[in-house]
Amino acid sequence: MPEKLAWKRKDLLGIEELSKEEIELILNTADSFKEVTTRRIKKVPALRGKTVVNLFYEPSTRTRTSFELAAKRLSADVINIAVEVSSVKKGETLIDTGRNIEALMADVIIVRHNCSGAPYILSKSVKASVVNAGDGWHEHPTQALLDIFTLKSKLGRIKGLKVSIIGDIAHSRVARSNIWGLTKLGAQVTVCAPPVLIPPGMESFGVKVTNDLDEAIREADAINVLRMQFERDNVSAFPSRMEYFKAYGVTEDRLKGAKKHILVMHPGPINRGVEISAEVADGPKSVILEQVTNGIAVRMAVLYLVTHAQGGAI
Amino acid sequence: MPEKLAWKRKDLLGIEELSKEEIELILNTADSFKEVTTRRIKKVPALRGKTVVNLFYEPSTRTRTSFELAAKRLSADVINIAVEVSSVKKGETLIDTGRNIEALMADVIIVRHNCSGAPYILSKSVKASVVNAGDGWHEHPTQALLDIFTLKSKLGRIKGLKVSIIGDIAHSRVARSNIWGLTKLGAQVTVCAPPVLIPPGMESFGVKVTNDLDEAIREADAINVLRMQFERDNVSAFPSRMEYFKAYGVTEDRLKGAKKHILVMHPGPINRGVEISAEVADGPKSVILEQVTNGIAVRMAVLYLVTHAQGGAI
Amino acid sequence: MPEKLAWKRKDLLGIEELSKEEIELILNTADSFKEVTTRRIKKVPALRGKTVVNLFYEPSTRTRTSFELAAKRLSADVINIAVEVSSVKKGETLIDTGRNIEALMADVIIVRHNCSGAPYILSKSVKASVVNAGDGWHEHPTQALLDIFTLKSKLGRIKGLKVSIIGDIAHSRVARSNIWGLTKLGAQVTVCAPPVLIPPGMESFGVKVTNDLDEAIREADAINVLRMQFERDNVSAFPSRMEYFKAYGVTEDRLKGAKKHILVMHPGPINRGVEISAEVADGPKSVILEQVTNGIAVRMAVLYLVTHAQGGAI
Repeated sequence: MPEKLAWKRKDLLGIEELSKEEIELILNTADSFKEVTTRRIKKVPALRGKTVVNLFYEPSTRTRTSFELAAKRLSADVINIAVEVSSVKKGETLIDTGRNIEALMADVIIVRHNCSGAPYILSKSVKASVVNAGDGWHEHPTQALLDIFTLKSKLGRIKGLKVSIIGDIAHSRVARSNIWGLTKLGAQVTVCAPPVLIPPGMESFGVKVTNDLDEAIREADAINVLRMQFERDNVSAFPSRMEYFKAYGVTEDRLKGAKKHILVMHPGPINRGVEISAEVADGPKSVILEQVTNGIAVRMAVLYLVTHAQGGAI
Repeated sequence: MPEKLAWKRKDLLGIEELSKEEIELILNTADSFKEVTTRRIKKVPALRGKTVVNLFYEPSTRTRTSFELAAKRLSADVINIAVEVSSVKKGETLIDTGRNIEALMADVIIVRHNCSGAPYILSKSVKASVVNAGDGWHEHPTQALLDIFTLKSKLGRIKGLKVSIIGDIAHSRVARSNIWGLTKLGAQVTVCAPPVLIPPGMESFGVKVTNDLDEAIREADAINVLRMQFERDNVSAFPSRMEYFKAYGVTEDRLKGAKKHILVMHPGPINRGVEISAEVADGPKSVILEQVTNGIAVRMAVLYLVTHAQGGAI
Repeated sequence: MPEKLAWKRKDLLGIEELSKEEIELILNTADSFKEVTTRRIKKVPALRGKTVVNLFYEPSTRTRTSFELAAKRLSADVINIAVEVSSVKKGETLIDTGRNIEALMADVIIVRHNCSGAPYILSKSVKASVVNAGDGWHEHPTQALLDIFTLKSKLGRIKGLKVSIIGDIAHSRVARSNIWGLTKLGAQVTVCAPPVLIPPGMESFGVKVTNDLDEAIREADAINVLRMQFERDNVSAFPSRMEYFKAYGVTEDRLKGAKKHILVMHPGPINRGVEISAEVADGPKSVILEQVTNGIAVRMAVLYLVTHAQGGAI
């Protein structure tokens, strides 16, 4: 896996701090690993004898499973620690938990936490590599990387693309990481949501803001539709799922004014009939399942790079 | 593992749709794998680099563990997904979950679900192999296969055997799968239970029906005693476990009129003193623990065959 | 791994029944494995093709994870069974569960149980090796072994050392196993706690008893500070955590009268500001994280020895 630029970070905590070159290095490395995931024997020995710990303070099937598979396809040993059965119950702090995991000679700790910044705190306390699998409303870097990887695979480039992110921008770590990544690589990002779901000062991120779904769709090369989480109390501004679907649900009808090649992305799990119609989710414009497949290659790349970081920590 | 008949199904969903020859192919393949489970190093590389997902919508230790071990002994990577920590909580449908697992390049999805037919729906949505690990009251094909495998190992044949299935026939997927399998292979099956636990029209399955335990035992070469699940509301017809034990509990005393070589089977976990006495469960006629051991070989065979299916899907 | 004394037990149930020589054999074997845990590829094939089952009737992150890693570094296949998803819910007895696990051809069952003696009952019912990962208030042998291993690594010997165990002696399996192990190897043990937390007749274990923390610290080569479990009802004698910390919390101030080389141990997870100050826990006298690291080597040794036991069972 020879690359001109060497990876130097022990961790992957967020997209915000990455350079354009670092993002491209991850994407290129993922390209090499993508081929592995389609082989009959989907394994390489790159992380044999290394230990990867999934430390999840929030329940998650898809992200945990994707990381677990990525690690296993690199031949690492994987340990899953979920909050429910962990000593967190006994009141141990994140730092103590991290140090204990490190004392077990873990090489990588993949952490999902409901508090923004938790992976940063953890990374300062341990010599092991820390990979952020989602922290509060802050970042979900591997999701953004797999979204960008999928875009690039399908459309050949990121620079100059118009990408609209649609949905609950205010509470979305996926939106935040995508915005950082896409703008660094030269895409033009529009965010689209009802006013109550767009945080003030969004323009300072270098994105266009609109409340009009048709406008967000019209010129987009791709749209990234976020999951509407009605289980949160903050969306009480919307009386019902039906109401939201009428105004912001992505349907074939709404896509009539779109570019022919428009791609529809979604980080999953999808709410059919809430933020997206079944017809669109399962239709030819959708790359939702390709995102899932690409997630493995991207996470293999991240695990590979952080465990093979060269030189001192950045 | 050369066999005249080649396996052609991508899935194992139920016994009902299998031919006599297909069942025999599974049993013969299991025979080859049984030897592996007794080696000092209990592993073969048949599924190296393949991914097997245990997708369990109902809690289960024994079936999940048995499949997990079977897959690991074939050198597959195994991912466990339990409902409690899954995105099912977030309202994702079975089909979406299945497609997502498939997008992770899983080769086999082993599914247990409380709804009859769920594995069939899943199998139509994914290219991955689907193995039914129990669906509602419908089928539990690998349990029947391991029961039949055990019978054949101990008695040398299935054709012409008299097998009585005793207990809650109405709500038993184990009974249903056993009836299909045993009758296809030429055994004579009797079902025995109090009237309220035998569904109407049972005779159309080609089995004898009786409410008399002694009659069910008298001519049987083997009895398969089902777990009595008092946690279900439908057995309120029985005032107590004691009452059930008196009328239908299999004891040494009740077995006095049986054939000398009679085998006692049970899918587990057993309720000592409810459907079976401790003396019988732990006695020389019992093959209950051999069933557990054989379960691994049978599941290795199933995983091997569905991942090596030849030709188009049936 | 040539040793003069051969290991003969199929199980590791407690420290009480071990001879001095057996304890030393485990410590020496752990020494050999410790080197493995620091290699770049942290794996040896000693248990390849063997199956290790973690059977946990109490939640535990650190002990389960430590055993899981130890087994994986020996190349064993590991199956985790937690009570929450197990058929224990369906009322299966420990013995039936054990026999079923054995029928799955498991080589080692690691069991944690809230009832004292459970691993002994299990070991009599199965041919598989049983390792006690903590039973009630009775024993936690691998914790004591890793404590002793850590002491010996740091101080060069056990014989003649003065070790004080501080905290809830009455309800601590860690205390009990440490007392057996340390006294067998010739250390002088003092236990220190408020009167209500010391069981009557403690002196018969061959230990000194004191209620005075300063006295317990003064001559000690090492102190082992137990976790204070306020979630138990039996400590209502103490009005608050603050109160306990004032009287029995180990702080830098309390350590002023200690020997220069004093080691501070803790089985974790620590309660900062309850039984120990953060300053001490993170300070230069603390070997708490080394204990965690050593736990893997000690557990590798135990798993290796019980699966390579020679001659008949003791």
